[in-house]
Amino acid sequence: MDIVIAGAGAMGATYGSILSKKENKVVFLDMWQENIDAINSKMCRLNNLGVEEKYMIKAYLPKEYTKIPELIILLTKSNQLENMLENISHIIGENTYVLCLLNGLGHIETIKKYVKEDKILMGVSVMTAQSIKAGSFKVSNYGKTEIQNICNTKEAKDFSLKLVDNLNKVGLMAEYSENIMYSIWRKACLNGTMNASCSILECNLNELNNFNNLKEFFKQIVSEFAFVAEKQNTILDVDNITEMLLSFTTEKFAGYLHYPSMYQDLIVNKRKTEVDFLNGYVAKETRKYNKRAFYCELITELIHAKENLIRVK
Amino acid sequence: MDIVIAGAGAMGATYGSILSKKENKVVFLDMWQENIDAINSKMCRLNNLGVEEKYMIKAYLPKEYTKIPELIILLTKSNQLENMLENISHIIGENTYVLCLLNGLGHIETIKKYVKEDKILMGVSVMTAQSIKAGSFKVSNYGKTEIQNICNTKEAKDFSLKLVDNLNKVGLMAEYSENIMYSIWRKACLNGTMNASCSILECNLNELNNFNNLKEFFKQIVSEFAFVAEKQNTILDVDNITEMLLSFTTEKFAGYLHYPSMYQDLIVNKRKTEVDFLNGYVAKETRKYNKRAFYCELITELIHAKENLIRVK
Repeated sequence: MDIVIAGAGAMGATYGSILSKKENKVVFLDMWQENIDAINSKMCRLNNLGVEEKYMIKAYLPKEYTKIPELIILLTKSNQLENMLENISHIIGENTYVLCLLNGLGHIETIKKYVKEDKILMGVSVMTAQSIKAGSFKVSNYGKTEIQNICNTKEAKDFSLKLVDNLNKVGLMAEYSENIMYSIWRKACLNGTMNASCSILECNLNELNNFNNLKEFFKQIVSEFAFVAEKQNTILDVDNITEMLLSFTTEKFAGYLHYPSMYQDLIVNKRKTEVDFLNGYVAKETRKYNKRAFYCELITELIHAKENLIRVK
Repeated sequence: MDIVIAGAGAMGATYGSILSKKENKVVFLDMWQENIDAINSKMCRLNNLGVEEKYMIKAYLPKEYTKIPELIILLTKSNQLENMLENISHIIGENTYVLCLLNGLGHIETIKKYVKEDKILMGVSVMTAQSIKAGSFKVSNYGKTEIQNICNTKEAKDFSLKLVDNLNKVGLMAEYSENIMYSIWRKACLNGTMNASCSILECNLNELNNFNNLKEFFKQIVSEFAFVAEKQNTILDVDNITEMLLSFTTEKFAGYLHYPSMYQDLIVNKRKTEVDFLNGYVAKETRKYNKRAFYCELITELIHAKENLIRVK
């Protein structure tokens, strides 16, 4: 399969490297020149669960690449998605499928501006990867990738199934989802509760147990997400998701001492967070129905205030 | 006037020291033995606007003191008020007036358990003082004290006016308030917005301008305070208070680089905050009317989580 990875950060580089293993032909498109140069001159270096590996994959600025691929996998940061789509629009062909594996909410609306609905695939990955420096990445945990076409055409479903098969062949555990929007919302709930609060309080998942009533805190936020999800025809099981979130803060979860990605972005790397595509999205959408998502609102405001205080890049 | 200061911390010690200047006889009651011993052996040391002063005032544990005074001024921390009242109940006589100068909300209900309503005076002070060590204090800003009796008897009003006069004679600028509850709520709004958010974000007043929409943030919280205030027959001018709060974050306000008292308690001294008597009080009272004060709720929860993370004393 002819695949373009749009966004060669930690997630994109890892995904692309592993995908390049079998009969796939993979190319990276990225907006960071230093990263492109490093990948082209020293190959894509990946610390793969502790083993140092190198992958020969060519990287380009979007405008330098003109070949229309069979599949584009979007793996930018949320706030870079629209800019990336704008820059790769010339290689989105009639028959090109576009798979979005970004965290966060509201991306379908953005993608629809550039891609026909029957070519859009949505996915969720729970991979944990990080950038070491330009051209160098580290993956510490794979995990399942769920994929589904958003238009129920036979052709789109066939392609999704083929892609799932393709991913499994290279070892990226994938499965076809019958309700990808549920999975996307569920992951957004996770990021919008734990990531956001760990970033405000500067603590790890386990330390969230310092809330006097963590369950009620989680439940309120999940309820706010569920309100918008329902307006978009996805019914969330608030209690079930709340219990899942609580379980991630206990020793039963291997990563319970983990500092989540938003903490890494904001506190460690002093980067802008994705809060506008999580709590901020829910707050904004809720107002369209003349309601307020108060917890999401305040969390968004506190994160933005903290971004500004930290003077993020 | 025969005056007992209940709570010889920074505010109480300063107030008592200055009050002891003219014909008043002042005694300190406190729960901290080391503080009592230091005051009794080395006098009450006060850095008074930069000048080192010493005041000969006797300090006691409440149970050691048995003389019924004309006036008791309550100046404990909010969460120590009930314990103090319990310990001084034997010196609250038939004719003893009790003036509450504590920050925060809900204190009247507590005081009423120990003091007849027509002997209760409420007040607001904007003094800025801090503890240096046991027996040693620093006042950096006096400011007006407002006082009013909560029962409209002639006797209580006459006493309030006499007390105002007495305070002014020693240089503690005081005035009789026609609506002390408005002043108490207004100050609570200040503490519940600026103090709480500076403590969560660990910043000074001026740095609150890092909020993308500080005015809306303040206004939402003040509105939540105003809802409960109105249920208690105090009508707050939300816009006016919001503008006042905003003005404190700009260079026009001398203390705009100040870290507020809750920040001092939590971040500097790792002490429990008074949030339960500010945002927490509003959140709890609002629920009595089957409503939610969402911002106050979340702020209270975040502050408590932070207290627990910091492992406050």
